[in-house]
Amino acid sequence: MERSMWFLDQKDMPTQWYNIQADLPEPLPPVLHPATGKPVTSQDLAPLFPMELIKQEVSTERWIDIPQEVQDVYRTWRPTVLYRARRLEKALDTPAKIFYKYEGTSQAGSHKPNTAVAQAYYNKKEGIKRITTETGAGQWGSALAMGCAFFGIECKVYMVRVSYDQKPYRRILMETWGAKCVPSPSPDTKVGRDMLAKWPDCPGSLGLAISEAVEDAVNRDDTHYSLGSVLNHVLLHQTIIGEETRKQMEMADAYPDIIVGCIGGGSNFAGQFLPWIRDKISGKKKDLRIICVEPESCPTVTKGLYAYDYGDVAGFTPLLKMYTLGHNFIPPPIHAGGLRYHGMAPIICHLHRLGFVEAQAVHQTAIFDAGIMFARTEGIISGPEPCHDLKVAIDEALKCKESGEAKTILIAHSGHGHFDLAAYDAYLSGKLVDLAYPEEEVRKAMVELPKVATE
Amino acid sequence: MERSMWFLDQKDMPTQWYNIQADLPEPLPPVLHPATGKPVTSQDLAPLFPMELIKQEVSTERWIDIPQEVQDVYRTWRPTVLYRARRLEKALDTPAKIFYKYEGTSQAGSHKPNTAVAQAYYNKKEGIKRITTETGAGQWGSALAMGCAFFGIECKVYMVRVSYDQKPYRRILMETWGAKCVPSPSPDTKVGRDMLAKWPDCPGSLGLAISEAVEDAVNRDDTHYSLGSVLNHVLLHQTIIGEETRKQMEMADAYPDIIVGCIGGGSNFAGQFLPWIRDKISGKKKDLRIICVEPESCPTVTKGLYAYDYGDVAGFTPLLKMYTLGHNFIPPPIHAGGLRYHGMAPIICHLHRLGFVEAQAVHQTAIFDAGIMFARTEGIISGPEPCHDLKVAIDEALKCKESGEAKTILIAHSGHGHFDLAAYDAYLSGKLVDLAYPEEEVRKAMVELPKVATE
Repeated sequence: MERSMWFLDQKDMPTQWYNIQADLPEPLPPVLHPATGKPVTSQDLAPLFPMELIKQEVSTERWIDIPQEVQDVYRTWRPTVLYRARRLEKALDTPAKIFYKYEGTSQAGSHKPNTAVAQAYYNKKEGIKRITTETGAGQWGSALAMGCAFFGIECKVYMVRVSYDQKPYRRILMETWGAKCVPSPSPDTKVGRDMLAKWPDCPGSLGLAISEAVEDAVNRDDTHYSLGSVLNHVLLHQTIIGEETRKQMEMADAYPDIIVGCIGGGSNFAGQFLPWIRDKISGKKKDLRIICVEPESCPTVTKGLYAYDYGDVAGFTPLLKMYTLGHNFIPPPIHAGGLRYHGMAPIICHLHRLGFVEAQAVHQTAIFDAGIMFARTEGIISGPEPCHDLKVAIDEALKCKESGEAKTILIAHSGHGHFDLAAYDAYLSGKLVDLAYPEEEVRKAMVELPKVATE
Repeated sequence: MERSMWFLDQKDMPTQWYNIQADLPEPLPPVLHPATGKPVTSQDLAPLFPMELIKQEVSTERWIDIPQEVQDVYRTWRPTVLYRARRLEKALDTPAKIFYKYEGTSQAGSHKPNTAVAQAYYNKKEGIKRITTETGAGQWGSALAMGCAFFGIECKVYMVRVSYDQKPYRRILMETWGAKCVPSPSPDTKVGRDMLAKWPDCPGSLGLAISEAVEDAVNRDDTHYSLGSVLNHVLLHQTIIGEETRKQMEMADAYPDIIVGCIGGGSNFAGQFLPWIRDKISGKKKDLRIICVEPESCPTVTKGLYAYDYGDVAGFTPLLKMYTLGHNFIPPPIHAGGLRYHGMAPIICHLHRLGFVEAQAVHQTAIFDAGIMFARTEGIISGPEPCHDLKVAIDEALKCKESGEAKTILIAHSGHGHFDLAAYDAYLSGKLVDLAYPEEEVRKAMVELPKVATE
């Protein structure tokens, strides 16, 4: 019997998140206050986040306990399955062993609930009654809607208007879980009203939606704001993915030579690779390759500048030291909406600077070639984001075919593409456009980096 | 630690299907030839189905080996998980224990691949190069598309035109797996061309799509036809669901008092309950209740006649002894497309006649009440079909609350509703219509039952 799936018993589900900050060879650069340029304090962040999350943001404890209430909710879908893509291996005729850890069986269809549930819990514990957030394509908004439903918290999602109109299914998902979802710009905030007065048909942007969600949160004592990627505490919550995978790879009697995943804000891939990178940092597995994959049209790590920049377009957020294409850069409308971000998780950028992770940019048509091949061999319809992983995994497996090496490749598969089928349709009908690197746009946006970036 | 999921190791996946025909107290009535009224022979069916499936249709062997090649494909998603709905139990404040076996993690999102993969395999083995089928909402067509992709068989799906236009995502799914999907009526068959000549804008019907698929298959030597429910061999392939569940319930130290599931053609629910009903037939668990749930607007078992009838509108198929609302009956357009069928699996009807299963009809608004409650407690967005199960399971759990009994309820949950969110939207926005029992329509259709029905 050839095994293709490894289940981890619920009693063996990890009960602690892994905090890479304990094992970094150099500490992360501090986060700076957008007005003063000085490192932010807990008090600066308190109107937005519960104190437990602010503590996690800067903690250097190696292991952080997952609260029992969060574990109980995790156990409605976790541990997720580790698969071996045997049928893909055969189709490629490669000696490589291809594993993938699949987060698509969460109720929201991705890794996002891992942090949504934790954030809802900590907010609930601090007496918060309501959480606001922004969402683009709706992956994050729907996960937070579910997290809030589970802890009896009101949830308000500002959804970029163009997505709100184009992707009604994600809005319906949020509403099914009880959240309120409005198109952004909305008349519910000053920044929204100002924009609507100037431009009634404004299609919105993630940056504007963030501004609306932040304004809403700071203006109400019962309300906090929540972010679905980039920040340290978000990556921390996602490490349950990699910690589970370590146990499952041991069950499979395997250890990865290459770990591959896509990065938008970076939380899914970091959730997988951070628990492994400690073996590379410690020297136990020096030759482990960790490949971050990003779109050719939004190549933050491969073409961005390592500098302090805002997380949002409006410049409301603290300054993060990261690779950036400039906070004013609006990425082209690729189908992988989750990868359309000008910045990147500071932890990933730091590890890249230190030489522990590498990065590759890939083209939109190539990732759908890979996605279709995966669908026709393994069955799973992948989101456009994890199709990026598949492209590079297949490339590496074909290199193995050439060299005869039986390498072990681990894919950090973030979820299904059930709400992204229009992209597959465009591909199958020959209408998919391959969007190039918008060099001129990036150059312009780079000029507008905040002053502190030059220090 | 409170466990909410039971995984079954792949080495413990059942390797045989269970055939209820070995344990029926009385044999099934024979299937009759539509022209002669005599029992059909293997040769009558050979232009449509491979001989192995024809044999399974009438076999009385208790256990039938699952071919190794089919097992290998099953292991790309099986065993599926048994869940306990602890958060739903708490919300209902019931002493009942509610379990659900969930087929929504298959790549196609439902139980349908269990038979699609098997049927594709047996056809491949017999040298068949191409399979035709019909599909309404697209659940079955997409599962067969995947099954055919896995065995390198061409797949042509005739999709009811109104669904083809309204549900492009299901069509895209089929195309992603490499199938050809055309709206029915189509110019590809005589029956389709005739209809288009008469009525160019004909919205199509399942009955017409079956006729097209059958005509296509009988006219080409390299082509067979495939059906996704009703027939004995289809129910047989689905018994892997119940056989897995038996092992998982044992792991959970539980045995069901009530098993509940929805029935359209009946294959998912039969796949779950047939492996349990042998304990009821043998007297080992006499008080086991098996509740079939159907829509109020298409109440085949609760209001139909037990008679010989055609499987399709055009009267091309053999005659099956079953509960029927008349093969000319067109069920109202409820969202649970998978339950809109005038007939029912003969095995289920037979067991109902013998008193081993009961049936209930429920209203469309009530099933969405249940679906929303399930989504907000357990997270999963259920298809409209399994929302029928949830409604009755919740009713039974509330009866337990009243009586104080800690009964064990097992739900046969057939899959997710990711492509049915328009129905949730209608419900949430107060636009969902509750469709009543169309008594007059059924009365008319009943008059047109084939003559043999009166014997």
